[in-house]
Amino acid sequence: MRPLGDSPLVRNDKTLVLAHDHGVEHGPKQFSGVEDRLDPNHVFEMATHDAVTALAVGKGLTETYYPSYKDDVNLLAKLNGGSDLWMGDPYSAHNWSVDYAAELDVDAIGYTIYPGVNDEVEMFEAFGEVQENARDHDLPIAMWAYPRGQAVKEHRSKEIIAYAARLGLELGSDFTKVKYPRSKENMAYAVQSAADNRVLLSGGSKTSDREFLELVEDCMDVGVAGLAVGRNVWQRENPYEMLDMLEEVVFEGASADDVL
Amino acid sequence: MRPLGDSPLVRNDKTLVLAHDHGVEHGPKQFSGVEDRLDPNHVFEMATHDAVTALAVGKGLTETYYPSYKDDVNLLAKLNGGSDLWMGDPYSAHNWSVDYAAELDVDAIGYTIYPGVNDEVEMFEAFGEVQENARDHDLPIAMWAYPRGQAVKEHRSKEIIAYAARLGLELGSDFTKVKYPRSKENMAYAVQSAADNRVLLSGGSKTSDREFLELVEDCMDVGVAGLAVGRNVWQRENPYEMLDMLEEVVFEGASADDVL
Amino acid sequence: MRPLGDSPLVRNDKTLVLAHDHGVEHGPKQFSGVEDRLDPNHVFEMATHDAVTALAVGKGLTETYYPSYKDDVNLLAKLNGGSDLWMGDPYSAHNWSVDYAAELDVDAIGYTIYPGVNDEVEMFEAFGEVQENARDHDLPIAMWAYPRGQAVKEHRSKEIIAYAARLGLELGSDFTKVKYPRSKENMAYAVQSAADNRVLLSGGSKTSDREFLELVEDCMDVGVAGLAVGRNVWQRENPYEMLDMLEEVVFEGASADDVL
Amino acid sequence: MRPLGDSPLVRNDKTLVLAHDHGVEHGPKQFSGVEDRLDPNHVFEMATHDAVTALAVGKGLTETYYPSYKDDVNLLAKLNGGSDLWMGDPYSAHNWSVDYAAELDVDAIGYTIYPGVNDEVEMFEAFGEVQENARDHDLPIAMWAYPRGQAVKEHRSKEIIAYAARLGLELGSDFTKVKYPRSKENMAYAVQSAADNRVLLSGGSKTSDREFLELVEDCMDVGVAGLAVGRNVWQRENPYEMLDMLEEVVFEGASADDVL
Amino acid sequence: MRPLGDSPLVRNDKTLVLAHDHGVEHGPKQFSGVEDRLDPNHVFEMATHDAVTALAVGKGLTETYYPSYKDDVNLLAKLNGGSDLWMGDPYSAHNWSVDYAAELDVDAIGYTIYPGVNDEVEMFEAFGEVQENARDHDLPIAMWAYPRGQAVKEHRSKEIIAYAARLGLELGSDFTKVKYPRSKENMAYAVQSAADNRVLLSGGSKTSDREFLELVEDCMDVGVAGLAVGRNVWQRENPYEMLDMLEEVVFEGASADDVL
Repeated sequence: MRPLGDSPLVRNDKTLVLAHDHGVEHGPKQFSGVEDRLDPNHVFEMATHDAVTALAVGKGLTETYYPSYKDDVNLLAKLNGGSDLWMGDPYSAHNWSVDYAAELDVDAIGYTIYPGVNDEVEMFEAFGEVQENARDHDLPIAMWAYPRGQAVKEHRSKEIIAYAARLGLELGSDFTKVKYPRSKENMAYAVQSAADNRVLLSGGSKTSDREFLELVEDCMDVGVAGLAVGRNVWQRENPYEMLDMLEEVVFEGASADDVL
Repeated sequence: MRPLGDSPLVRNDKTLVLAHDHGVEHGPKQFSGVEDRLDPNHVFEMATHDAVTALAVGKGLTETYYPSYKDDVNLLAKLNGGSDLWMGDPYSAHNWSVDYAAELDVDAIGYTIYPGVNDEVEMFEAFGEVQENARDHDLPIAMWAYPRGQAVKEHRSKEIIAYAARLGLELGSDFTKVKYPRSKENMAYAVQSAADNRVLLSGGSKTSDREFLELVEDCMDVGVAGLAVGRNVWQRENPYEMLDMLEEVVFEGASADDVL
Repeated sequence: MRPLGDSPLVRNDKTLVLAHDHGVEHGPKQFSGVEDRLDPNHVFEMATHDAVTALAVGKGLTETYYPSYKDDVNLLAKLNGGSDLWMGDPYSAHNWSVDYAAELDVDAIGYTIYPGVNDEVEMFEAFGEVQENARDHDLPIAMWAYPRGQAVKEHRSKEIIAYAARLGLELGSDFTKVKYPRSKENMAYAVQSAADNRVLLSGGSKTSDREFLELVEDCMDVGVAGLAVGRNVWQRENPYEMLDMLEEVVFEGASADDVL
Repeated sequence: MRPLGDSPLVRNDKTLVLAHDHGVEHGPKQFSGVEDRLDPNHVFEMATHDAVTALAVGKGLTETYYPSYKDDVNLLAKLNGGSDLWMGDPYSAHNWSVDYAAELDVDAIGYTIYPGVNDEVEMFEAFGEVQENARDHDLPIAMWAYPRGQAVKEHRSKEIIAYAARLGLELGSDFTKVKYPRSKENMAYAVQSAADNRVLLSGGSKTSDREFLELVEDCMDVGVAGLAVGRNVWQRENPYEMLDMLEEVVFEGASADDVL
Repeated sequence: MRPLGDSPLVRNDKTLVLAHDHGVEHGPKQFSGVEDRLDPNHVFEMATHDAVTALAVGKGLTETYYPSYKDDVNLLAKLNGGSDLWMGDPYSAHNWSVDYAAELDVDAIGYTIYPGVNDEVEMFEAFGEVQENARDHDLPIAMWAYPRGQAVKEHRSKEIIAYAARLGLELGSDFTKVKYPRSKENMAYAVQSAADNRVLLSGGSKTSDREFLELVEDCMDVGVAGLAVGRNVWQRENPYEMLDMLEEVVFEGASADDVL
């Protein structure tokens, strides 16, 4: 694995990002049933759990809540995003500069690219600038790598997810967040394709405890460096219970069976 | 609520913006019946009323009239806007820089975005830069958040207005101006979705005194932080009477019945 | 009227701009019958007439001829323009920077916008930058405001010309040059809509002495701040005679009958 | 004529540019029959002839060969150009900055614009920046002015060539290179339209000695300031013979008959 | 040949670049059968072979592996590239700045252009900036020159490859990498067209030892300055054997027969 110095994002060489950019990407409807969590204090509170090595949020949440949680939360600044009202080809608007993120004292940078879309060129070029700017501030970079577009018939196929993971290595991220490619063997291939880059499993939409923990166990087995989980934690009735279990599976090598 | 320091825009933790960018957005036809108010001195004069915590106008009006009213008016610099002669997808041209607004000694920044339109990406990115530039000058930012575009079938629905309010929080505004989502319950949901962000009711076109004041009362009841009102004040025969009544409803907790 | 300090562009609070950007906008065919005036020395010479408070020309003419006329001519730098060979939607290319205009020691800035065209956004944003840059150099700005585009069925209607005049005020020009809206009453409405902004009549194509002077008289009667005249002066056989007459009508309050 | 100081580009107030940007504009096929001249040393050698007051080449040729010819050749830096593989509307990519040209110690700047094409606006704006940057370095500027596009039915007509020449004056070039407008009278009109700007005849494709020299003679007769010649020199079997003859016609007032 | 100072990229005035940007351009599928080489350490190791005068890789591989190989590998920074998921006209996203490449202590710059494509203008302009920035850092530049687009019916024809080679000279590269134009004679013409620019053979997809070595021999015979080889080395079962043979053919003048 590519060294990360003494970054707080890594514990036992593993990483668990609590992702919470759903307010910009999908809006309040994502909080259906857990409306109390429209108050981001609840989610920042979850991020103080020992299992969480970083909380990924956008600029507004960082400005408003991070000052109260700075001692207990590592912040991964999600610099781009877009609403799901937009009907264009996938593209993620870059609305937060690395410089200002650094000024707010964040611990890492996150950026989404959609390889294969009409504006792939613009996204690669924007990522290139963000990446170099992050290096200037000695901030690690996580790439959300989600291939889309005309040539991507099946965006979770073995080849596509391995390509996504490889792009993280090639373009200079420290972590690359990819979707699950439908089998443990395919994920192993993605990890091999990423070489010394750290692959993070993208958590996806909420599933049962067992289903989700077995998925995580499978990924850890084949060398994934951790996960970025959102809805499978903060949409749960009891997110702390899930975080307790994830802590054991991700950092301590426990199996899903062990913790359930 | 997110703290605003000792900003003059807030009084009893509430805000009333007198909006007057109609000359650029719609032109002189908006002054039909009140042609004397084509002279902006009349509107700046209204803004000296105690009920008004800020006057929102563009660069030209600020340069020409603000010097004479600086002691009595708080100015919210509306940085973007466009004519209604334009037939393109909604977009608001950024014609005033934050730096020059600060040089003119304004008290806050205002910026319109249209989530969901073809150029959502450009608008989010432009807002991102304006927002950070405003932070450099310690100026609060109000976002005019008006979802539009192919996916927005009903731009005043519960979900759309709550999404608009949430985007203000997520993208880093201090105030978010939204349209009324057709019911008090829906507005309560928008306020909840905005969490610590201050939601302002967009006044809309002129209605009767009672209709407008009951609307304001309902909004204040569910936690709205104030309103941005234009035509319902400056198009009225007696704007000062309306401002007197609004002052009681917005800042003193009076009902529409109390003041009528 | 918005104060202009001791600007040489104003005399008795009135202004007469001799406009001569026809070489770029329409080319040599505009000089048909007066080919000797293809030599710009003739037009700079006309601009030394006392009636002319500013000569509006582009960068090339300024560089080549202004050095010889600096003591006798006030120069209004026309920063944008385009050829009539271009078949696109109206747009005026910005080919001269404010900084370089200031370096050449000009007295004012001129810029064309076409509200309502497909690229209205770009034109408003470009004007915004030019306007602020002009302020940095303490140079007054004249806007050529010509609405066009799909929504502009009749570009000289009462509403359209009043809107154009208002946009000058709203966007921060000192002078706004508009076409004649077909009646004296309509021009009065445009002047009222512009409030403290100075409206200049756009001279248009060559007409008879009487027709042109009566038009100017009517405009001065309803509060127009002067005119920007091109072809009605430099295309005339005897431009100095016309300038003598304009001087009396514009600056001395004479009628067309008085001077003819 | 607009003064050029003690520029080496002018001799007896006349100019002869040897143009050699054909390698980028059309590629090696232009060297058919004279393949030895694919070696630019041959063309730089021609440019040491007394008749040549400047050699117009691009960045690569300048970097590679100019260092060896600096004492004997005046270099006109052709900053933009494109391949003839491109099927888009005429446009000339700006691939060499004025600053770097100045660093390489060139004597003048050359830039192509195509008035009337879809991207006329971009070309005018790019020329505007180049022109001002050249002024900063005290470098003369030659404009290659070639109208094209939907409105240009006949790009060598009297009106079009006169318009091209005028645009050079209006936009601030020192020299304007135009095609021959099919008659001596038309060229006289172009020269008159350019006023104090120096019109250069664009040499065009290779013709017979007599045809070419009579064309040059006719142009010099009506006040053209010189020519920019490429293929009619370097594609000839004996370019030095042609340069000897051109020297007499351009700088000494000889006729074609005199020299043949 | 244009001098390169004491650049480590040249040995006996010849160059062999090991190209390894396939991970970004085509993804992991290119490693089918040699999956162990998904670990870039294997390829950096190959680049320590004496035959390799430079290794061409992107930013991510350089950041991750170059620090361990700096003493034994010369690095050519490939600044642009794109995924093969993209269905647009060929274009190569510029994702690595020259400044940051220089900061990472690379030895040369590489940049792809596609003359003839819809965005030729943008690619030429981007190359122009990169080229000048590389000069600022005294770094040699290699252009990958691959004509494409509507006018390019046969992208390996004699004329097209010669044009590509010439563009390298004209636009200011030090090396120009072109495809093989189907015959030794055609390659000789490309070399002649490039004059003092160094033409590199693009290795292409994997072929037999004899076929590949005879191709290289033919190219060296007609004055090619070396080659840029990727798949014909790193996709081979025994890449070191091939490098041994290439060393003799490229640097020692051996024939394919000699080494097989």
